[in-house]
Amino acid sequence: MAIDYDKLINWKFDPIESEYTSKDSILYALGVGLSADPMDMDQLRFTYEEDQLALPTMSVVLAYPGFFLKNPEFGVDWVKILHGEQGIEIHKTLPAAAKVVGETKFTEIIDKGEGRGALLFSERKVYEKSTGDLLCTLTSTTFARGDGGFGGPAVEAPKPHNIPDRDPDSVVEMPTLPQAALIYRLSGDFNPLHADPRVAKAAGFEKPILHGLATLGVAGHALLKEVCGYNPEKFKSMALRFTSPVYPGETIQTEIWKDGNEVSFRSRVKERDVVVLNNGRAIVK
Amino acid sequence: MAIDYDKLINWKFDPIESEYTSKDSILYALGVGLSADPMDMDQLRFTYEEDQLALPTMSVVLAYPGFFLKNPEFGVDWVKILHGEQGIEIHKTLPAAAKVVGETKFTEIIDKGEGRGALLFSERKVYEKSTGDLLCTLTSTTFARGDGGFGGPAVEAPKPHNIPDRDPDSVVEMPTLPQAALIYRLSGDFNPLHADPRVAKAAGFEKPILHGLATLGVAGHALLKEVCGYNPEKFKSMALRFTSPVYPGETIQTEIWKDGNEVSFRSRVKERDVVVLNNGRAIVK
Repeated sequence: MAIDYDKLINWKFDPIESEYTSKDSILYALGVGLSADPMDMDQLRFTYEEDQLALPTMSVVLAYPGFFLKNPEFGVDWVKILHGEQGIEIHKTLPAAAKVVGETKFTEIIDKGEGRGALLFSERKVYEKSTGDLLCTLTSTTFARGDGGFGGPAVEAPKPHNIPDRDPDSVVEMPTLPQAALIYRLSGDFNPLHADPRVAKAAGFEKPILHGLATLGVAGHALLKEVCGYNPEKFKSMALRFTSPVYPGETIQTEIWKDGNEVSFRSRVKERDVVVLNNGRAIVK
Repeated sequence: MAIDYDKLINWKFDPIESEYTSKDSILYALGVGLSADPMDMDQLRFTYEEDQLALPTMSVVLAYPGFFLKNPEFGVDWVKILHGEQGIEIHKTLPAAAKVVGETKFTEIIDKGEGRGALLFSERKVYEKSTGDLLCTLTSTTFARGDGGFGGPAVEAPKPHNIPDRDPDSVVEMPTLPQAALIYRLSGDFNPLHADPRVAKAAGFEKPILHGLATLGVAGHALLKEVCGYNPEKFKSMALRFTSPVYPGETIQTEIWKDGNEVSFRSRVKERDVVVLNNGRAIVK
């Protein structure tokens, strides 16, 4: 079964309503590695309920619609998909606890041609229920390796952000816990690939891999620390490409370039010198 | 205001009804340090939802009545209390998820005399709601340093269990995470002493201390591993004295003596060579 372009691009997703508590925000922050030093008062703001703040990257787990590409009506060969890119735009600083409503849609589907796959662009807008305010817009690009040649538009994909051709202005090193994926998945993505060694092996990995969005959370923490002084109000947006998985327990080095309000970044695993996030771009205030 | 013996010993606590989910059981297990090696399949049974098991020591957080000694009607000088002893008796292996009902009462209050404090013995029975079966009995001894001489019975306190006078049969070493208390507290004990450096300092500690019941969880894990082969069915009971606090990030060594079904144990912090749990006794099947 092939992708039906018109059907997907016009698909009406049911809005997702959900609630997150102070405890959920703490659990998310612990899952992406905050408070490895429990005496760090900046980080404690995110892992302790007094005057609590929420990490901007927590937006990716809010009103999470689940693995919707598995819907058989979509005709996507979901076994062969890869999460290629993720963007976050913050419109209003996330509260530490709130009721939210998420609205998802496909924004574009590009046909790269027979045997070359398809690119599915989707977007989720998350609103604060009590005020109706838009909190954040999440954009996601999925590379569907098995779905090229479905007859959709063969337009050019957007160019990735270029990392400056100079040494980074700073490098932030952050460890991950061996049990990081087990903690992170409690924020809602229970894909067994991140917990079960048997499933990981069947998928071609030596052991369970960290969620790509958890790696994004670590890079987001690096940006929040290095260019926002741990003030979420300064964090406006973040976008990146996933290039390789991280194994829980590895150390993530995030290289950062500052050009006014625009920040470029790239993350690599120190132990294996492999780039795991690339073409990163953030806007700070 | 002094303790009114008759009032306390006859106090009717409201039953506490609560529900715990598979995710709550995972969070508890991660909080006491399981899956520090995420490839350990024995430990993964407690931190992953497939064929999930619950740690026997999780019983201490079930149907938790909160800090009830703060009730002004009890007349307890609660600022000066210490959690002295804890016992767990498992009647039926804990399910990974269940609705439970907890019934708490005081079982004895011993007056050690003016200036010498009082000992408050309380008990909580936790029932599985769906079957009415008794899951576990939790016994707790509180040393109320400020409450001696209230006119209660001056009977002898029960003698603590004697550790055998020989070298331990085995020693199990387990690290704790620097963020262990921040994870553990999400299981329900949000006392800021375990998170807030300012509160810890005011209480006379250099930094937040680990929950005594989290240290108990680490010792319980050591017993489960060493004498139960990670089979919770074999874990019948456990009782101990708290002797000193642990700082999150320290390594806990549990010394174990086996005498048939009776197991004696003692835990110390490796880095400071301080005994933190003593007079431990467990019964295994």
